[in-house]
Amino acid sequence: MPSGTLLYAQSGGVTAVINATAAGVLEAARKRRVKVLAARNGILGALREELVDTSRMPLAAVRALAHTPGGAFGSCRVKLKSLEEDRARYERLIAVLRAHDVRWFLYNGGNDSADTALKLSRLAAGFGYPLTCVGVPKTVDNDLAVTDCCPGFGSAAKYTAVSVREAALDVAAMAETSTKVFVYEAMGRHAGWLAAAGGLAGKGPDEAPQLILFPERPYDEADFLAKVKGVVDRVGWCVVVASEGIRTADGGFVADAGAGKDAFGHTQLGGVAAHLAGRVHDALGLKVHWALPDYLQRSARHIASKTDFEQAQAVGRVAVELALAGRNATMPVIVRTSDAPYRWKVEAAPLERIANREKKMPAGFLRRDGYGITAAARRYLEPLVRGEAYPPYGSDGLPRYGHAEAPLATQRLAPFAEG
Amino acid sequence: MPSGTLLYAQSGGVTAVINATAAGVLEAARKRRVKVLAARNGILGALREELVDTSRMPLAAVRALAHTPGGAFGSCRVKLKSLEEDRARYERLIAVLRAHDVRWFLYNGGNDSADTALKLSRLAAGFGYPLTCVGVPKTVDNDLAVTDCCPGFGSAAKYTAVSVREAALDVAAMAETSTKVFVYEAMGRHAGWLAAAGGLAGKGPDEAPQLILFPERPYDEADFLAKVKGVVDRVGWCVVVASEGIRTADGGFVADAGAGKDAFGHTQLGGVAAHLAGRVHDALGLKVHWALPDYLQRSARHIASKTDFEQAQAVGRVAVELALAGRNATMPVIVRTSDAPYRWKVEAAPLERIANREKKMPAGFLRRDGYGITAAARRYLEPLVRGEAYPPYGSDGLPRYGHAEAPLATQRLAPFAEG
Repeated sequence: MPSGTLLYAQSGGVTAVINATAAGVLEAARKRRVKVLAARNGILGALREELVDTSRMPLAAVRALAHTPGGAFGSCRVKLKSLEEDRARYERLIAVLRAHDVRWFLYNGGNDSADTALKLSRLAAGFGYPLTCVGVPKTVDNDLAVTDCCPGFGSAAKYTAVSVREAALDVAAMAETSTKVFVYEAMGRHAGWLAAAGGLAGKGPDEAPQLILFPERPYDEADFLAKVKGVVDRVGWCVVVASEGIRTADGGFVADAGAGKDAFGHTQLGGVAAHLAGRVHDALGLKVHWALPDYLQRSARHIASKTDFEQAQAVGRVAVELALAGRNATMPVIVRTSDAPYRWKVEAAPLERIANREKKMPAGFLRRDGYGITAAARRYLEPLVRGEAYPPYGSDGLPRYGHAEAPLATQRLAPFAEG
Repeated sequence: MPSGTLLYAQSGGVTAVINATAAGVLEAARKRRVKVLAARNGILGALREELVDTSRMPLAAVRALAHTPGGAFGSCRVKLKSLEEDRARYERLIAVLRAHDVRWFLYNGGNDSADTALKLSRLAAGFGYPLTCVGVPKTVDNDLAVTDCCPGFGSAAKYTAVSVREAALDVAAMAETSTKVFVYEAMGRHAGWLAAAGGLAGKGPDEAPQLILFPERPYDEADFLAKVKGVVDRVGWCVVVASEGIRTADGGFVADAGAGKDAFGHTQLGGVAAHLAGRVHDALGLKVHWALPDYLQRSARHIASKTDFEQAQAVGRVAVELALAGRNATMPVIVRTSDAPYRWKVEAAPLERIANREKKMPAGFLRRDGYGITAAARRYLEPLVRGEAYPPYGSDGLPRYGHAEAPLATQRLAPFAEG
């Protein structure tokens, strides 16, 4: 039994399977008889010394996390700055880790969290404090470098593809006398991974979604409207998947154009789909419906991808192994060894190669006209949405989601004023 | 083997399980060796003599309809007026029915369709044309009279409750440093059935959704904002489910207030959630997210309720039996015989008691403060979302949805100019 405590924290936007990673961490650590504290609300909990004592969670509760969406220990959107600018907070972190004999720190998040973990590991080394920092990948944006894909993305991608396929069947049935255009807004401020996943809903150019708008290509309204009209003329109806992050050629977010005033002069929170729907309605005179699933797409554990679920658990387990083996400043990443049959394994990668970088969609994933995905994109995406990993349901017809209710570890330090 | 043809048509907004009803109709008719034609795009197909010959569909294709959302034969939003105003169309219908030896007409829709079926049956009787008209219930709005519930509603209700529960876990994880209020917009222009179903996501007053806005209660902005603030102060975050049809005390739809202009002066299609989110943001200064699932909620076959699925098939089967038994101007309706254990059966009800009526939510289903549901509402709603009826999935990770591709029956009449 290794001496010391492992600290686990969740960071940034949560996903349908980040708790599956947490379950992987907790189960693996229990097998190695390592005590795990989980920071409440991510790095904030570490600063505030609010550390959930997971040893007080029954094993059944730990296992229930595997099928529970959201962030069971709470997450946060707090980015630590450079060591120079944020020295007080980094030093506080070290003090809290020291107070609880934390020897291993697992930070479950995206680029920013990888950066924080890296900086913390450097600071600890500078202080001579023995700490192994391991980043654990997570993001529905799928934009982490090095790893083939990011846990959380596959499930959001499956939700997107399934939702678009279903809504398209609805539109097709209604189009003769009612809705002719349907716009679905997908998350993705900088990269169109989720919008691309929407493309899995259909194959030929006349199957929905007939048009996808990516942040990787400048949005040209006239061209878009002409394309919509062409599809409606040919097919009778049109389904559009739009990434929230599309921009016009001058670099402005289209979503910002949608933020206007309502009839009473109040702020109107629009978004891309609302804007596009308005344009299609006004310019083409077509009846249009639109959907903005927002958090639904990243919390839809009920339609999680089995691949994603298994990878999310695996990176949690491997993160514990890496930590206990002293592989400081690393992250377990998914390595794809074969497309068909799909095969993958988890390997360690240095945080330096991941922190603060952003993986864009390869240009070869976008169809030449910019409105669809290529066969290469399908080859990449399809295995990630494959398989179902249904949660258990209660007799009330709802998923039995778990909780991470456990007492906090006794606080040993004075409160941190700033945290 | 009865002589004559059965005509089946889908009408109005489609659902996740209206095709399960179609499968029930087709399978039951095949067992009785009755030929079924299905009108393309609802009553329009009957007027245009576009009648799909379902005898050309393989049995596997018929069965696949049972797990396929949307309206496989196409639907329409066309309401026939009174016999006097729309005599030419009613007479055209009789001519088409006569040309194809249609003895039984099954119209799968809501209040309007029940009305059309009723009128058609009267006209046929007036003409001495032997026709049995049977309405088949369907609507996510759950507002048909007589029947305990409407096929299509249970699945949309399950989608709503599951989505709200999942999104709430996301919000709870983010609230400390990010989103504090989440608004989910549910369908329901006149009755808050789906919004009420969102209430199944939680139980106590502090569980999400903490606030539900019903069209049955006037929307009072100041009171609503105070309630949101109270919940955020107490719980840390707040989930709101809002019915699209909420109105202010003067009767105006709140959604209409949201239809303003964007930054470029273009029409901004808003909706209730966008408006409420804007108000919460402006008036309370809280970070807010909102979701508008739109068609996703009524086409989500992937999360269909088993109760709903079984009832949808059953009303299809019984409709065929009623038709063949000559039970003219009736509709198979769901009769609840017990809440716990939940028991139901299908009985025939006269269309006269259903046509053009609208079932409101009982006042006893709304909590006294108007922002939640009562135990009586839960007793009613819970069995309707119970059980899962997953569609089969392909190796591409997507549901294998079916098609209703079959040739049209040979046309025997000249085209109908107006249809």
